[in-house]
Amino acid sequence: MEATVREIDGGVTAPAGFVAAGVACGIKREGRLDLGLLHCPGGAAAAGVFTRNEVVAAPVVLGRSRVPTRDVRAVVINSGCANACTGAPGMAAAEAVVVAVATALGCAPEQVLPASTGVIGDPLPVERITAALPGALAAASAEGGQSFAEAILTTDTRAKEVAVEVALAGGTVRIGGCAKGSGMIHPNMATMLAVVTTDALLDPPTCHGFLETVVTTTFNRISVDGDTSTNDTLYLLASGSSGVGVSGDEDLRRLAAGLERVCGDLARQMVADGEGATKLATVEVTGGRDLAQAERVAAAICRSPLVKTALFGEDANWGRIVAAAGAAGAGITPETTRLWLDGLLLYAEGVPTGAGRGDEAAALMRQRELTLHLDLGQGEAEATYWTCDLSFDYVRINAEYRT
Amino acid sequence: MEATVREIDGGVTAPAGFVAAGVACGIKREGRLDLGLLHCPGGAAAAGVFTRNEVVAAPVVLGRSRVPTRDVRAVVINSGCANACTGAPGMAAAEAVVVAVATALGCAPEQVLPASTGVIGDPLPVERITAALPGALAAASAEGGQSFAEAILTTDTRAKEVAVEVALAGGTVRIGGCAKGSGMIHPNMATMLAVVTTDALLDPPTCHGFLETVVTTTFNRISVDGDTSTNDTLYLLASGSSGVGVSGDEDLRRLAAGLERVCGDLARQMVADGEGATKLATVEVTGGRDLAQAERVAAAICRSPLVKTALFGEDANWGRIVAAAGAAGAGITPETTRLWLDGLLLYAEGVPTGAGRGDEAAALMRQRELTLHLDLGQGEAEATYWTCDLSFDYVRINAEYRT
Repeated sequence: MEATVREIDGGVTAPAGFVAAGVACGIKREGRLDLGLLHCPGGAAAAGVFTRNEVVAAPVVLGRSRVPTRDVRAVVINSGCANACTGAPGMAAAEAVVVAVATALGCAPEQVLPASTGVIGDPLPVERITAALPGALAAASAEGGQSFAEAILTTDTRAKEVAVEVALAGGTVRIGGCAKGSGMIHPNMATMLAVVTTDALLDPPTCHGFLETVVTTTFNRISVDGDTSTNDTLYLLASGSSGVGVSGDEDLRRLAAGLERVCGDLARQMVADGEGATKLATVEVTGGRDLAQAERVAAAICRSPLVKTALFGEDANWGRIVAAAGAAGAGITPETTRLWLDGLLLYAEGVPTGAGRGDEAAALMRQRELTLHLDLGQGEAEATYWTCDLSFDYVRINAEYRT
Repeated sequence: MEATVREIDGGVTAPAGFVAAGVACGIKREGRLDLGLLHCPGGAAAAGVFTRNEVVAAPVVLGRSRVPTRDVRAVVINSGCANACTGAPGMAAAEAVVVAVATALGCAPEQVLPASTGVIGDPLPVERITAALPGALAAASAEGGQSFAEAILTTDTRAKEVAVEVALAGGTVRIGGCAKGSGMIHPNMATMLAVVTTDALLDPPTCHGFLETVVTTTFNRISVDGDTSTNDTLYLLASGSSGVGVSGDEDLRRLAAGLERVCGDLARQMVADGEGATKLATVEVTGGRDLAQAERVAAAICRSPLVKTALFGEDANWGRIVAAAGAAGAGITPETTRLWLDGLLLYAEGVPTGAGRGDEAAALMRQRELTLHLDLGQGEAEATYWTCDLSFDYVRINAEYRT
């Protein structure tokens, strides 16, 4: 994989066939970027995956009705307003934005994919968005990926971008992406928006298949706070501008590896920038009876406020990790279970090793990134998840967000 | 129910046939009470319900093997050390404590019920406990319920006690209880210990049946942080000292009402004293298709960090409540859903009413106790849960607890 997937600079405009821009349209305060436009003049095959929340925002309703599809021309995303819980007026507003973009580009509304993020329940200020569209279109360039990535942020503290080159049989293709997401992040597509582009030549069903697979081991394995949102959207657009298509299973495997690298990297960037986060913890569960058990235990550990506050407090409180695993209802057996903090064994066969009280554990807990490895001792299945700590700033950000 | 159940002063020693004391045995720092002994000289029928965590503490293993039973003489509880994840030495330690109590009382070890709460993984200091037992036994009195209630606390800021009188056909009986629990509290018997006593004349199966029923609408409907512990234990002891038994269905109904009053009151006291809590929110879900749906939605709202930080921030952010309900995966329909903050309608038929932005909502959010009422508009089922807010102090308490 190292030989065939190589990281490069950039994000959504790293692949050929895409231009983008982020502008300030006045939804957020003080001229901050809040409108992102990604344009693919030659069209792109596209697929999407969306939130599983039963309360979905208007742009999600619109977007998921349009993918997979063959000839998408643009993705338009605003931040600062989720356009969720806004009823029929919200649907009309989402459609008005899409129509305005289509009119400006001279394409059909069905060729424009929308997304929104921000406060739930506020009406979408359509006029501010449509007024800013000509400027966004004029500004769109192959160097615009970063401003696009900035325009989709909410409580994020930094833009999240990554790009790779993948060597296929017929030549080299690129995959690039950006994401936003900082709170309300939990398995099954919580509050996050991500756009991934490639210049590989792919048909819509292949795009869709890639997305369905890659989310299970990337975006669906991160947790900031266990909450899931009304607006989650991940789009994949394939321009075909490289002229290089997929030729055989080895190419499929390489492209999947490249996509996993991009989505996994974006997912970890989201957790590392989780609201108030000071730590990024990788939670590896091995020795599971089956995949579902390993996933359930890993997710429970990532979700536990007691585990997350212990991370913040730099306290090697392994008992909370074992208790969270036991509370998952996944059939773990304490007498076969072992827990390591990085390489240090803290708990084995039902009892502590004593290392959790030592200087080495304390030093490991002070790292910015660390790994918790729980072996269930029941079988061969494994799952890796990522989470962050629960800090004072998480509470501050979410207690003060709207006011 | 008002006529037959009347609140009185006191806790576990309010019913006849029980004496109790709390003493300092040196597990906690600075002479704080950490050992509670409840003694029923004439014996009591007893039942218990316990944590569903798969990792259980030694005293839970011991206690649940002994109930329901006919002739219990004592309950012994220490705080400061959970005796969980301590393997065979932990089991031996729990048994040693029980044997010491039995020896002091001149009864069999099977007549003593244990419980522990505190840090996971530390060895139980058996000698400190056994050395303090004679003093605890000497101090035990009918006025000792409060010191017993204090001795079982961990991060709680206050003791939790309640007692009632219930008029039965044959005369008046009393029910009293105390509880501890402040963090790791979530449906299905999270970290909490509770002891409920009565002087009614009941057999062990009746005690057990009452407990199984009452927890579903009281202790299993509260959430502080979604975590469940290794040590949860609820004991019910019936001394029969009133000489009044149950005569017919009306008596059963009255006794159940009295027990629900006691357990519900203790459960709400726990949430109100949740770690760092500044608010007590009652979450009423009505209009459910079935009970399971109403319970699932209510539990999801109570568990959401975004809802809980909004409570702390006194922000009428109804969108987070609707989003949490939608994320529960319980089949809600936004177009039939309505949400009230106390009497104020915030959201109806898929759209906000606008009241969430007004002065009245802001004033209601400033109350110490408030009610969120979500009507799903699908049927007749309903469920009421209780939760608290997520504050800076929750993070501080749990980041600093062990160090």
